[in-house]
Amino acid sequence: MVSHPIVELTSEASWNLIQDKFSDYGKETLAKLIAFLHDEVLPAQRLAHIQIPSDPVQRWKTIVPVIEELKVKARKLGLWNLFLSKLHYPEHGVPLTNLEYAVMAEMLGRGGHMASEAVNCSAPDTGNMEVLARYGSPEQQKKWLVPLLNGQIRSAFAMTERFVSSADARNIKTSIKREGDEIVINGHKWWISGAGDPRTKLHLVLGKSDPENSNSYLQQSVVIVPADAPGVKVVRPMEVFGYDDAPEGHCEIIYDNVRVPLSNLVLGWGKGFEIIQGRLGPGRIHHCMRSIGAASMALDLMIQRITDPSRKTFGKYLYEHGTVIADIAHSRAEIESSRLLVLSAALQIDKYKAKGALKEIGIAKFVIPSMALRVIDRAMQAYGAEGLSQDQPLASMFANLRTLRIADGPDAVHIQQVGQRELKRGPALAKRAAEIKKKELAVMEKAGVKSHF
Amino acid sequence: MVSHPIVELTSEASWNLIQDKFSDYGKETLAKLIAFLHDEVLPAQRLAHIQIPSDPVQRWKTIVPVIEELKVKARKLGLWNLFLSKLHYPEHGVPLTNLEYAVMAEMLGRGGHMASEAVNCSAPDTGNMEVLARYGSPEQQKKWLVPLLNGQIRSAFAMTERFVSSADARNIKTSIKREGDEIVINGHKWWISGAGDPRTKLHLVLGKSDPENSNSYLQQSVVIVPADAPGVKVVRPMEVFGYDDAPEGHCEIIYDNVRVPLSNLVLGWGKGFEIIQGRLGPGRIHHCMRSIGAASMALDLMIQRITDPSRKTFGKYLYEHGTVIADIAHSRAEIESSRLLVLSAALQIDKYKAKGALKEIGIAKFVIPSMALRVIDRAMQAYGAEGLSQDQPLASMFANLRTLRIADGPDAVHIQQVGQRELKRGPALAKRAAEIKKKELAVMEKAGVKSHF
Amino acid sequence: MVSHPIVELTSEASWNLIQDKFSDYGKETLAKLIAFLHDEVLPAQRLAHIQIPSDPVQRWKTIVPVIEELKVKARKLGLWNLFLSKLHYPEHGVPLTNLEYAVMAEMLGRGGHMASEAVNCSAPDTGNMEVLARYGSPEQQKKWLVPLLNGQIRSAFAMTERFVSSADARNIKTSIKREGDEIVINGHKWWISGAGDPRTKLHLVLGKSDPENSNSYLQQSVVIVPADAPGVKVVRPMEVFGYDDAPEGHCEIIYDNVRVPLSNLVLGWGKGFEIIQGRLGPGRIHHCMRSIGAASMALDLMIQRITDPSRKTFGKYLYEHGTVIADIAHSRAEIESSRLLVLSAALQIDKYKAKGALKEIGIAKFVIPSMALRVIDRAMQAYGAEGLSQDQPLASMFANLRTLRIADGPDAVHIQQVGQRELKRGPALAKRAAEIKKKELAVMEKAGVKSHF
Amino acid sequence: MVSHPIVELTSEASWNLIQDKFSDYGKETLAKLIAFLHDEVLPAQRLAHIQIPSDPVQRWKTIVPVIEELKVKARKLGLWNLFLSKLHYPEHGVPLTNLEYAVMAEMLGRGGHMASEAVNCSAPDTGNMEVLARYGSPEQQKKWLVPLLNGQIRSAFAMTERFVSSADARNIKTSIKREGDEIVINGHKWWISGAGDPRTKLHLVLGKSDPENSNSYLQQSVVIVPADAPGVKVVRPMEVFGYDDAPEGHCEIIYDNVRVPLSNLVLGWGKGFEIIQGRLGPGRIHHCMRSIGAASMALDLMIQRITDPSRKTFGKYLYEHGTVIADIAHSRAEIESSRLLVLSAALQIDKYKAKGALKEIGIAKFVIPSMALRVIDRAMQAYGAEGLSQDQPLASMFANLRTLRIADGPDAVHIQQVGQRELKRGPALAKRAAEIKKKELAVMEKAGVKSHF
Repeated sequence: MVSHPIVELTSEASWNLIQDKFSDYGKETLAKLIAFLHDEVLPAQRLAHIQIPSDPVQRWKTIVPVIEELKVKARKLGLWNLFLSKLHYPEHGVPLTNLEYAVMAEMLGRGGHMASEAVNCSAPDTGNMEVLARYGSPEQQKKWLVPLLNGQIRSAFAMTERFVSSADARNIKTSIKREGDEIVINGHKWWISGAGDPRTKLHLVLGKSDPENSNSYLQQSVVIVPADAPGVKVVRPMEVFGYDDAPEGHCEIIYDNVRVPLSNLVLGWGKGFEIIQGRLGPGRIHHCMRSIGAASMALDLMIQRITDPSRKTFGKYLYEHGTVIADIAHSRAEIESSRLLVLSAALQIDKYKAKGALKEIGIAKFVIPSMALRVIDRAMQAYGAEGLSQDQPLASMFANLRTLRIADGPDAVHIQQVGQRELKRGPALAKRAAEIKKKELAVMEKAGVKSHF
Repeated sequence: MVSHPIVELTSEASWNLIQDKFSDYGKETLAKLIAFLHDEVLPAQRLAHIQIPSDPVQRWKTIVPVIEELKVKARKLGLWNLFLSKLHYPEHGVPLTNLEYAVMAEMLGRGGHMASEAVNCSAPDTGNMEVLARYGSPEQQKKWLVPLLNGQIRSAFAMTERFVSSADARNIKTSIKREGDEIVINGHKWWISGAGDPRTKLHLVLGKSDPENSNSYLQQSVVIVPADAPGVKVVRPMEVFGYDDAPEGHCEIIYDNVRVPLSNLVLGWGKGFEIIQGRLGPGRIHHCMRSIGAASMALDLMIQRITDPSRKTFGKYLYEHGTVIADIAHSRAEIESSRLLVLSAALQIDKYKAKGALKEIGIAKFVIPSMALRVIDRAMQAYGAEGLSQDQPLASMFANLRTLRIADGPDAVHIQQVGQRELKRGPALAKRAAEIKKKELAVMEKAGVKSHF
Repeated sequence: MVSHPIVELTSEASWNLIQDKFSDYGKETLAKLIAFLHDEVLPAQRLAHIQIPSDPVQRWKTIVPVIEELKVKARKLGLWNLFLSKLHYPEHGVPLTNLEYAVMAEMLGRGGHMASEAVNCSAPDTGNMEVLARYGSPEQQKKWLVPLLNGQIRSAFAMTERFVSSADARNIKTSIKREGDEIVINGHKWWISGAGDPRTKLHLVLGKSDPENSNSYLQQSVVIVPADAPGVKVVRPMEVFGYDDAPEGHCEIIYDNVRVPLSNLVLGWGKGFEIIQGRLGPGRIHHCMRSIGAASMALDLMIQRITDPSRKTFGKYLYEHGTVIADIAHSRAEIESSRLLVLSAALQIDKYKAKGALKEIGIAKFVIPSMALRVIDRAMQAYGAEGLSQDQPLASMFANLRTLRIADGPDAVHIQQVGQRELKRGPALAKRAAEIKKKELAVMEKAGVKSHF
Repeated sequence: MVSHPIVELTSEASWNLIQDKFSDYGKETLAKLIAFLHDEVLPAQRLAHIQIPSDPVQRWKTIVPVIEELKVKARKLGLWNLFLSKLHYPEHGVPLTNLEYAVMAEMLGRGGHMASEAVNCSAPDTGNMEVLARYGSPEQQKKWLVPLLNGQIRSAFAMTERFVSSADARNIKTSIKREGDEIVINGHKWWISGAGDPRTKLHLVLGKSDPENSNSYLQQSVVIVPADAPGVKVVRPMEVFGYDDAPEGHCEIIYDNVRVPLSNLVLGWGKGFEIIQGRLGPGRIHHCMRSIGAASMALDLMIQRITDPSRKTFGKYLYEHGTVIADIAHSRAEIESSRLLVLSAALQIDKYKAKGALKEIGIAKFVIPSMALRVIDRAMQAYGAEGLSQDQPLASMFANLRTLRIADGPDAVHIQQVGQRELKRGPALAKRAAEIKKKELAVMEKAGVKSHF
């Protein structure tokens, strides 16, 4: 049997557990993606960084040439929109399951943000395409979804607000009001990823259209705002550990009396909460798999450093230090168990959609980013100061992953939700315990034994 | 589709990942085992404890009546020797894969040592049966293996020695010498599990038959020593956190000029290391799955306590305390990922035998016991002092699991071995990195960019 | 300058920080205590264990001869009632501060429960003597306190109740009612330490005398119940892990219509909560220091094992394994910082009584036991199975310390209280931040810079 | 008694432990420093950031005006060169002990790098001034030390090399050769802090002058290299995460045939190792105290956020979430114990110089940065994405502290050294144990008891 190239990059054990759930197309696409990653994406990374100017103004006006070239190549190879499963999006989707894409997402995570962008699978476009594919009107799909699917434009999702605890989406304050044939938007958002990109043509804006509705989950709506609409003011890029992530960026934006036609409302009035709920499920899993890919890449880098024969301190090669080896073993163990955890969540989504996999998604969401941060941190330590610098990808991986403990709900929210879900098992457990207790008394009585309980 | 009862006791996500690898027989047997656990084993646990007298002499002469009754019932139900897979033991085995038995071992772990014994799957008998089935002569099999398979007798494996770091088996000192038609054994062992049991009829004793052999892995042999042979002195039971685990016990034993016939040699002179290596693989996985079962049971107990409406402190029910809920969520996450990790190792064993799954077994061996100890510790804390006492199974679970961080090789040994195995990937990683670097230079050159590296 | 023997057993750095707060008497007493520990207590430990019979009845009727001998020696040396500081108990106390005794308590912790008992400083007698010295009537002091101070009798404190979350003392249900000249007690307690000891002559019982009082802190009273009063039924000893801690024990007790004279009421009706509050402060610090002593002893044992030249595995001495050395370094660091933390709390108590040191006591209470458990766990691991057994003191230390994460309030309670206390700093912090902000604006304005905030 | 303002910013308990070791001058200076921090430094921080241009060239040519103004004010207040203790530097030092300065360093840590610079106590100038004060010739002191002490110029210390594991200083390769009356330097350094600053006038360069010396600790020398000497090429700034820390920076530098006069040799040929050893001791403690100040500031920020009444999620204020409160309690506990640990190390240095406090310094070095990172990480999480951004100081604190787990020796080196030091206690422990064992046998014999050991 010829082994699949995925084995070398993940593990035979995890592949054995899932490979019979892959179609031939899935296996072939995965193999192609791996080759593309090593032949095209990774060799282009340094050039891409160089092609983004350090000038604080110019870097925001840049379309990185080498990434555009990669996109052309990827599309030719059929490596395109892999995230959009036909299972859930029969019209626009590709014939891949969530499980299959999950493994591909891990591969993309090895190549950083650029890899995902090269195959048109980068956030926030992915979630936005899902929204438009599922909820968009034909007109909206034609105008916005098609060019997104083609990788011709990019997009932003404007939810998080300054001065407000947006982890609870019901707190958002941006006002969305109908005035005649128009919708008027006023609000102050930040951390709007992609809003800095010159190719970004639309923002999906979440705001309150019905703030007095007694059901706090029906107060929100989503509207499409063209990026160049009058009143859209990109205030500044937010930085993450000193990185501005130009040209995409994570921007502070003020919507100052922005007016769009009524037809830019997505799905309907009061449907905002429903839309963001639908948007988040599989995306979280993809983020998690990318994180595992990043962690796995970091571990590979660590092993490379540790086994570099030119590195020797205090009379020992680095690979002779017991604690370093223990760090590697723990990292490997954490990566393997994390991968299986997320793959099992992906399979749940395939079977029951995101709604039927909330526990698994929740667990993955709070376990994986922290795991990946630990692994990357160990790798940084093995590299010394170089590990924290621009000469290795580790520090920027760390910064990026650190945001995942906050984005799409901070760890604490997911931990509480998973815990609450477990608590619901209480009554069934009590019932089972009572049944066993009853039988126990019968067994004791039959044996002529009394208990003082 | 009717759901399998395993789902309620493990999780739908893990079951979905593996159920298509279960035969119908496997599924049915698993369902029967679960019913047996709840209908028979768990209700008998308190009685079994009561049937072991507290008198320090009598407790070692006891054959617990209720366990013998359970064994009769289990055998009738076909729940017997489930650990011995036909895959590896065509003659004596049952038609179950390691993966299938792994799930059953988790169930057995929910019922403590007694559950395993009830279905004739308890250590050290399991490993000893494997040894005799694989390496025993027809005569040895007839005399010792058959009654073991029938659950008529029990056995011990005498490896660990007092005054010696036995984690490295090459350190053992017990002498095994041929004298004419006899083998003479002299040595000082301890932690010999099962040696206290009145039903134990044989010890498999590892010792040095060829201490001068230049290959330190060929110095050892294994001989069968009848428990009642002259010179076998059970010195005392060792305690684990105050538990003596009577009647099996973990005993200190002196072999003082013990003589057995030549035919009691297992496999051949110098085969001792080969035998103990073969003995340990799948057994480690079974221990791990039982540990997961114990952890899972502990979490269930914790949830029961937390949702008990009669428990309220400082104006809040226990389930309203955020940190308790977080403990539960983390425990659930750790159990789920651990289960998947061990199941993937079990599948590797099915595919490549234990030898082909050393990495997976090693990872499981150092990850799972610590994980289970954490989960049980949280549950103990939720129960307060009661959690540490004889009124809950948690403290004895903890003590038992704590030994697993030492038995069959302490954590550190497995961590170092897994780490070393990872280091071997170094050259391949360096080669791949060099290839990417080469392409990177080509890409840079084509773009007309120079690097100062 | 001649160095004090404490330096070798703790550290020069911690001693330097506090030695000028020691009186000459304190220094001399400490030196005597250290000599007594090594010359008398530690050499007697094995004998003491042997003198407690394994027979399940006899072990509870035993007065351990060698401990009684030690008590005589200790008293002659002036090593007696060291816990009772003249600062707070001018009449009965010894001229030692809490800080001075704290260091001595660490030394006692190196010798296990027996060391504390030998110098009449063992719980629960210590807390009970404090209660009687502070709140007892002259008659109560004559009858109960004097023989306790003389080490002639022992005592119990009956607070924790079965079926009730006693971590919140307001939940207790035991009824204490006046009937004429008598007080009638009915209740179901457990975990009553010392109640198994044949020398125990009195129980201080906390119960509800005024359950309808609108102030839930005034419902409780404490009464003295002679251990042999009719209706006092010791049901069974509770076990901690597998230890029963005979002869003291931690017993389940039913008070069934127990009648005592009115004069047995301590301090007054409704004063129960005040009494238990007063009882707990310094005692918690002493427990913490003893825990540090235990941890420190465990680390010494670990180092002894690791440097034992007869121990070698996989071609390396144990002390050559990097992870073991890292465990030792972390343990040392944790012990040193823990000691300083508790010493600073002891000094606070000397300055402001327990009430003025609640934050420091709370921190110590949730930090130290967990720290000590970690250190002991590492030592157990270094000893292999022997570390879990009766041949080393580590497992029983572990069991004992594990109760401290629950006794006198579980970790979570102390964590929440310390956290809440920190939250109270919120307004002052906000005020300071506002002042700085105001100055910042002035600075910016002066420099002609505008901010978009 | 009027309380000292330090109490509010640290804790009464730690202050009580050390205040009697403070002189009146020490107390007054500390109070002045606290006032200066709140009145001048913290209000100037935002302006300082704004005064550093974002232009990638200009930012390296900047002398931040507001910092220069602060320096003038500080010097007038007598808040100047506080790090240089008269105890060790009678000529140039200030009358403060290391313990006194340690507390001040914690205060400086609350104000970031700028606070230290404002009082002329910022690395690497501090260490360089120590070197020149201790080892410099009168001529060197006049030319370089005096303007450094006056804050007129800045300096760099060039030790770490690219392509070499510089954690072991014996690995460095830079060549330092005498040629006639000149010294010629060739080497490739990086991470040279301060080298970007336009005010930096000298580099202290460590290199190999005698690479063949059989004693690997005598191969190195240190020479003073003027920053503008021909052949000094600043290649680029290294980034830490995304920060370049302009204008100081951490630069890659090539010394290409740089020539300096013989008189620029510091202390003598082959004295390089001695110099760097002497340089590191107290400096490490100061870094640790600054780290504690940073952690303490982060905790204050966290509490401010948590108690901000405008923040509410899922129906609860942030301060009502149990896990957040637990995070705060743990952070407080870790800060308090860390402070005491470092203060005790500082006192050791006062008593026995750095050489006599190696264990304490080593422990602090590996404990404190990790502790501070944990505390800051929790604070970042409480702030959500804002916590990772330029709007809060937390992410840049984190990046800065992350380097401390590497700089001046990575954690692993210090952990191993502390562990090795502990192992040396082995023989003394074995001796003590043997003595106790001997007495134990005597006690047993006297009691007529035999042991089977």
